Amino acid sequence: MAERRQLHLGAFMRPVSIHTGAWRYPGAWPDANFNFPRLVRLVQTLERGKFDAFFMADHLALLNMPIESLRRSHTVTSFDPLTLLPALAAVTERIGLIATASTTYNDPYHVARKFASLDHISNGRAGWNLVTTANPDAALNFGHDEHMAHGERYKRAREFYDVVTGLWDSFADDAFIRDVESGIFWDPARMHVLNHKGPELSVRGPLNVARPVQGWPVIVQAGASEAGRQIGAETAEMIFAAGGPIADAQAFYADVKGRAAKAGRNPDHLKILPGALVVVGDTDEEARAKRAHLDSLVHYESAIGSLSSILGVDARAFDPDAPLPEIPETEASKSGRERAINLGRRENLTVRELAQRIGGYAGAAIVGTPATIADTMEEWLEGRACDGFNVMFPYVPGGLDEFVDRVVPELQRRGLFRREYEGTTLREHLGLPRPENRFFPRQARAAE
Amino acid sequence: MAERRQLHLGAFMRPVSIHTGAWRYPGAWPDANFNFPRLVRLVQTLERGKFDAFFMADHLALLNMPIESLRRSHTVTSFDPLTLLPALAAVTERIGLIATASTTYNDPYHVARKFASLDHISNGRAGWNLVTTANPDAALNFGHDEHMAHGERYKRAREFYDVVTGLWDSFADDAFIRDVESGIFWDPARMHVLNHKGPELSVRGPLNVARPVQGWPVIVQAGASEAGRQIGAETAEMIFAAGGPIADAQAFYADVKGRAAKAGRNPDHLKILPGALVVVGDTDEEARAKRAHLDSLVHYESAIGSLSSILGVDARAFDPDAPLPEIPETEASKSGRERAINLGRRENLTVRELAQRIGGYAGAAIVGTPATIADTMEEWLEGRACDGFNVMFPYVPGGLDEFVDRVVPELQRRGLFRREYEGTTLREHLGLPRPENRFFPRQARAAE
Repeated sequence: MAERRQLHLGAFMRPVSIHTGAWRYPGAWPDANFNFPRLVRLVQTLERGKFDAFFMADHLALLNMPIESLRRSHTVTSFDPLTLLPALAAVTERIGLIATASTTYNDPYHVARKFASLDHISNGRAGWNLVTTANPDAALNFGHDEHMAHGERYKRAREFYDVVTGLWDSFADDAFIRDVESGIFWDPARMHVLNHKGPELSVRGPLNVARPVQGWPVIVQAGASEAGRQIGAETAEMIFAAGGPIADAQAFYADVKGRAAKAGRNPDHLKILPGALVVVGDTDEEARAKRAHLDSLVHYESAIGSLSSILGVDARAFDPDAPLPEIPETEASKSGRERAINLGRRENLTVRELAQRIGGYAGAAIVGTPATIADTMEEWLEGRACDGFNVMFPYVPGGLDEFVDRVVPELQRRGLFRREYEGTTLREHLGLPRPENRFFPRQARAAE
Repeated sequence: MAERRQLHLGAFMRPVSIHTGAWRYPGAWPDANFNFPRLVRLVQTLERGKFDAFFMADHLALLNMPIESLRRSHTVTSFDPLTLLPALAAVTERIGLIATASTTYNDPYHVARKFASLDHISNGRAGWNLVTTANPDAALNFGHDEHMAHGERYKRAREFYDVVTGLWDSFADDAFIRDVESGIFWDPARMHVLNHKGPELSVRGPLNVARPVQGWPVIVQAGASEAGRQIGAETAEMIFAAGGPIADAQAFYADVKGRAAKAGRNPDHLKILPGALVVVGDTDEEARAKRAHLDSLVHYESAIGSLSSILGVDARAFDPDAPLPEIPETEASKSGRERAINLGRRENLTVRELAQRIGGYAGAAIVGTPATIADTMEEWLEGRACDGFNVMFPYVPGGLDEFVDRVVPELQRRGLFRREYEGTTLREHLGLPRPENRFFPRQARAAE
């Protein structure tokens, strides 16, 4: 059993859940967004479940949805991840802590310094989810009239990565001597001044923080576009992938790992974890009923707006309690439209049910008993569709507790998931090497 | 006794101490800079001592001193305050947490969001020390060729303050209804879009964080220049003042409080806390001997450089073990030069001792028994030279423990300092009102 491929589990969370109806679910915590004790309870439960990491999204503006939907959404506000995660680091000991930070609306010196600080505070548990920010409204909060174009954003992101990792390497791991006798605190010969002057960024350095415990915090990415896949293959150590049919996931997995190999990297040092909403029940039927109940809590007014926009037609005209009528070709994205139509047919959903499903959470889901869920996870892992999952809970704390108390033991029983943390750092949990300092390489070990 | 004017105490700390020789002091923690458990021990000791706040400086580049001094200094690196303080919030319950953040090298949206997040996480204990950054090297780490001029920095700082406080007021305190029944999470009529377009900054808003627990985190400033005093009088709620002779402190106190009144503010809502290095001994002689020992740990090579630059002559030529010779008029700042010369005469110091005193910590100090220290503090408080002190400890943990275990009880015995926290927020500790939301004023209470 010890030889089995091991699952990695991240928890991708909005405090109240990623599902827009979750705050209305019985037993949910509608006030979790700014209630720190509740968040402590969540992360400590994840640590009890031996999760590799808690993974936090970020938004630099209100979500850009119609106000009619927005006023019904608990996702309108959120903590700054780089302020929340240090606080959660202080109340946990092992779980990794991944914060999202934009390369478009930040200075690399701040980003390098904050993640380095988090890595020291957490004793090596920090990860940086590098994003370029998709919401164009963010630009207006940062002194710009319009959002930077996609290509431009990725160009800056790539250079930003070089600068931040270069700043983390400002000091050799052994730069701080602290020799009380001689009075020498550190050795200037073991400090590197970056002096970066690139097309997008100009940063002198050095960083005024000692090299992070992990060398570098773990680099995480989620881009699915061509540019996103390429930068991920070149630089990411964990990729938050989309779910979808297993064949699509296998193709994505093979593509990105292949690109990594082509870039001269060991593909095992890049872990691919698709996101999945996991709903647990005593029976598969009960789990589906829970999901249906959750979806039913999405207000029809906002749900039908989401469905209309995916279909490219005004779905308000349809009978909410009848199946979806024939939909003509429209200007809307073909794949999204077809996915919605097929979902309605396959599960025999009414217009209302389909709208609420899509308005609640449109991404991949695994719904069933602990055994059904473990079967799916095992199939994906063995089938080289993933290296694990970024799990989303349908409501908290209930959905989280069910996963930790029922699904995790089933995965452990099958030998697919750790029973105890073996290392102390996020890199160790994920099986990633500690990067060498590019300016102060160690002597080659072979020469010793 | 309950009627006595009350002292407020902040702790202004570098992890290892503000004194450059501190890391070599017997029992000191040379590794405290990036050792989180040590910092937990420090802040929990301060909370045991009922301090109003832990106050953390910030630096956006290495300190700009000659490398020969810098390599002997433990102040070369430091945590990002906005990453450290949330972690310290999670291990404390009452003490205020003040982080320094620059208005010159930050975006106001980030600053507003991080302090609002810290205020929620700490349940109302955040303070923002608004600085414009004096070290010109910071510019080079943020894409600029040169540092912004002093006047320009203060112009931006004033507008930055308006934007940040405006963003904190984005939501009315009662905007989040979270009505599970109706499915309305929040009320868009209780949200204000800032739409700020000023000469320096353009920020649309709203902030995507609920209004802070304190309304606004406490505003702290330390500027001593004409522009610094004026912005402090207009906007600060706590001022970190320079020490010096009591007459100077009284003049500063009267000047700033007068400016605040002239700006239409209640001068009691602006607390003035000079910084003071406090060295405790069983006798005044023992305390002075501790200070002398601490100073002697400053390496002569860096100390004599500091003295040379203050005097404007090459002091390396002097006999280190003789008194300071006559110093001619030079180009160096007259006040600094005269202060150094007078200090040497008054305390009968050798060139070496004078250099080490100035190289260790050149600011104000209170050195003596707990009673002597309390006498000085009482004299300053009663004499309207201050509302309290930002205490600096000569070495940690020893110097901190001595203050908390011996000086605090003496201040409490005299009825000058709280025995228990009465409130839960930093505003309550400091006796400051909670600001109204400028966009959603409450009904006038008189009309109720």
